[in-house]
Amino acid sequence: MRRADKRTRAQSGLFVLAFLVLAACAHETAKPDAAAGAREGLPYRIVASLTTEVGPRLAGTPAEAAARDWAVKKLEGLGFKNVHVEPFTIAGWTRGHGHASIVAPARQDLAVAALGGSIATPRGGLTAPVAFVATYDEMLKAGEGAFAGKIVFVNDRMTRARDGSGYSHAVRKRSKGASEAARRGALALVIRSVGTDSDRFAHAGNMSYAKEVKRKIPAAAISNPDADQIERLHAEGHTVTLKLDLHPRHIVDAPSGNVIADIPGTEKPDEIVLLAAHLDSWDLGTGAIDDGAGVGIVVAAALRAAGPEMKPKRTIRVVLYGAEEVGVHGGDAYAKRHAAIVARHVLAMEADFGTGRAWRYSTNVPEADLPFYDAIGRELEPLGLERGDNKSNGGPDIGALRKLGVPVVGIGQDGTTYFDLHHTANDTLDKIDAEALEQVTEAFARVARSVANR
Amino acid sequence: MRRADKRTRAQSGLFVLAFLVLAACAHETAKPDAAAGAREGLPYRIVASLTTEVGPRLAGTPAEAAARDWAVKKLEGLGFKNVHVEPFTIAGWTRGHGHASIVAPARQDLAVAALGGSIATPRGGLTAPVAFVATYDEMLKAGEGAFAGKIVFVNDRMTRARDGSGYSHAVRKRSKGASEAARRGALALVIRSVGTDSDRFAHAGNMSYAKEVKRKIPAAAISNPDADQIERLHAEGHTVTLKLDLHPRHIVDAPSGNVIADIPGTEKPDEIVLLAAHLDSWDLGTGAIDDGAGVGIVVAAALRAAGPEMKPKRTIRVVLYGAEEVGVHGGDAYAKRHAAIVARHVLAMEADFGTGRAWRYSTNVPEADLPFYDAIGRELEPLGLERGDNKSNGGPDIGALRKLGVPVVGIGQDGTTYFDLHHTANDTLDKIDAEALEQVTEAFARVARSVANR
Repeated sequence: MRRADKRTRAQSGLFVLAFLVLAACAHETAKPDAAAGAREGLPYRIVASLTTEVGPRLAGTPAEAAARDWAVKKLEGLGFKNVHVEPFTIAGWTRGHGHASIVAPARQDLAVAALGGSIATPRGGLTAPVAFVATYDEMLKAGEGAFAGKIVFVNDRMTRARDGSGYSHAVRKRSKGASEAARRGALALVIRSVGTDSDRFAHAGNMSYAKEVKRKIPAAAISNPDADQIERLHAEGHTVTLKLDLHPRHIVDAPSGNVIADIPGTEKPDEIVLLAAHLDSWDLGTGAIDDGAGVGIVVAAALRAAGPEMKPKRTIRVVLYGAEEVGVHGGDAYAKRHAAIVARHVLAMEADFGTGRAWRYSTNVPEADLPFYDAIGRELEPLGLERGDNKSNGGPDIGALRKLGVPVVGIGQDGTTYFDLHHTANDTLDKIDAEALEQVTEAFARVARSVANR
Repeated sequence: MRRADKRTRAQSGLFVLAFLVLAACAHETAKPDAAAGAREGLPYRIVASLTTEVGPRLAGTPAEAAARDWAVKKLEGLGFKNVHVEPFTIAGWTRGHGHASIVAPARQDLAVAALGGSIATPRGGLTAPVAFVATYDEMLKAGEGAFAGKIVFVNDRMTRARDGSGYSHAVRKRSKGASEAARRGALALVIRSVGTDSDRFAHAGNMSYAKEVKRKIPAAAISNPDADQIERLHAEGHTVTLKLDLHPRHIVDAPSGNVIADIPGTEKPDEIVLLAAHLDSWDLGTGAIDDGAGVGIVVAAALRAAGPEMKPKRTIRVVLYGAEEVGVHGGDAYAKRHAAIVARHVLAMEADFGTGRAWRYSTNVPEADLPFYDAIGRELEPLGLERGDNKSNGGPDIGALRKLGVPVVGIGQDGTTYFDLHHTANDTLDKIDAEALEQVTEAFARVARSVANR
């Protein structure tokens, strides 16, 4: 526990007010002081505590269990009620030993990460020439047997965008590419990382095998500079030979769970405003931006929305989901377990987009409620948020609730640099922008406060 | 060979002129075009070729031998004469398998690199609690036995500076720390990387054991974010336990060598203007900034200084040194081998400071020659170089020549970000600023041309 955690919430609240005034009045001139001040704020302190005291927390592992223990203790310490874990099991996966290299024309080790869910290579590794494919769409056009005896390398680049919109296109090769390559005879799939940086980090991420494709092949991502290297060798007419030696393991019935914590409503305790983030992370970094930041934001926002008296009219619930990265299992488990009371969720919001400032406020609420939500939007304008549309998907973990009719609000964060760090070993606490976390937290808090006290 | 390499030197020369005009007139507005243009220039194409076709080239390994083969072929192809290798042997070292982690209070893998020259840990690894030391100077103050049974962790940060001046202070813990820790009973030394970035890369680099300290202990660097993690755990009162499992190997009589290439002088062929860079690199990256950039600069500058006719009055010699990183062995070997003709070296210059723009012109020449060298300085002013002092050390590889009285010129490059990448896996071609390389090359060329034709 950091010493600063011992401040009272009242002190914290005063600090936050002071901070917001400072940040608004003197954003440029007082930057170093404001940044140091923001690191004393609760959102940052929560990310610091989670990433330092627990660290990486891959779904289904003892580290994720340690994160649940951390969360229960932290949430109880902050005054939440009804703090408990709702366990479930998943098909687990661990990375194990992994290594990859270019073995010809010139030997070079690669920054590699097996994709989550991938099978292992044979013991001793798999060495084969590369079939270079410029884009995933080009790979899909290839005929049966086109890649027989080859390791397919897919070279697609991801586009940088504030709203992260480059991801859905770029991620297809990672999610589905292995079976598509296997259909066409490939021995393995290697992709240019789904990420916007030019650092020597492989971006991890989940994949799955299509049921109708019997042959499973190993799948891995390499860093962007390594992909550049293969691209250059290919452009110069070389046949590139890769060796992959990846030994992930699958685990049957691995334990995971969601952590629930409430600030009970005083007037309508059965009605719930749900704030979501996910507790699990990929294993390579310490999950600071993904999704330690979200954990910090929603925990602090819930307290801020409830006010110093901790007496909102409706219940404000924080759910820290398990096993998001490996298939959004926590989100599905919560929706299933609470199916009978889904209609009591008056709003769900999720923070899972890193450490960027909030810039857009979107909704997905009944038409009749739009005047109420538009009024909230006007409260967010001074924080720098513009009004988005009424088609927000909310986020992955609350997706199941949204599909069941729960209204959602999306606080759009600036994701311009999010995919520089996303799922890499470089996702660590030093990357957190504490000032931005304060601003995002305030946006979440204003929405939650208005809806909880409506 | 990249297609662009097939341009003639005359075309190259015209391009360079056009480029310099463009860069000077429209540096800001035409940046993307200028950058693309600069990548067609010889300095960049040389770095691209070396890093792509050879890649990492650790001293004493087959990869360094491949770099010598590459250099001979490249230099002959560019029209240099007397191209040959001057072999020597070194005490070699290879990294082998390495892994490190925090095992308590919470498990986390560390980005680690054994220091060059370090012995291995025992098979199965070495696990011990950390003795946290804030600075290297604090460690030196500790008494005998102060670290018995502990792994010493030294937390010094390196200061960022344009002239790289933070390095000499910060590097002491890396160069000499192991024996100082061993004197005080430590089982191993772990240092915060000597680097200015906050990325999850360990910075490699050489170390040596003091002869008078009998007990050798393993030594390694961890990334700055990992060091932050240990620092935070320590600050919160935790005892941090590390596991180190590092298996470098020492090699007796490993082959290395210097590659020499001349543009013979037409009037005084026995007088030599020597341009130096080093061909070896650390093993983790592909040695683009260290020292592929230097190789690109000096090879292109030699040709540019000689002019399209390739007829300088004095001989312009390029020396691509071997085994610089592991003890400046190439520099020493050259000085020893050519001891009889040292006095014929009228000037030596070295490029070994990455991809930053040249900003300072320093000399270390006889007083009587200062008017001549000051005049050269005035030719460099339009390129943005200021006149430094007459105390330049020239650089590591030409240090032995300088000590024997050879005049040297130092072209100071902007090193503000050099130590973000230095000796890491992230030192790859994408980091090269091709426009800056053109400017530095031009500065080297102007000096070499003036001295060669004096």
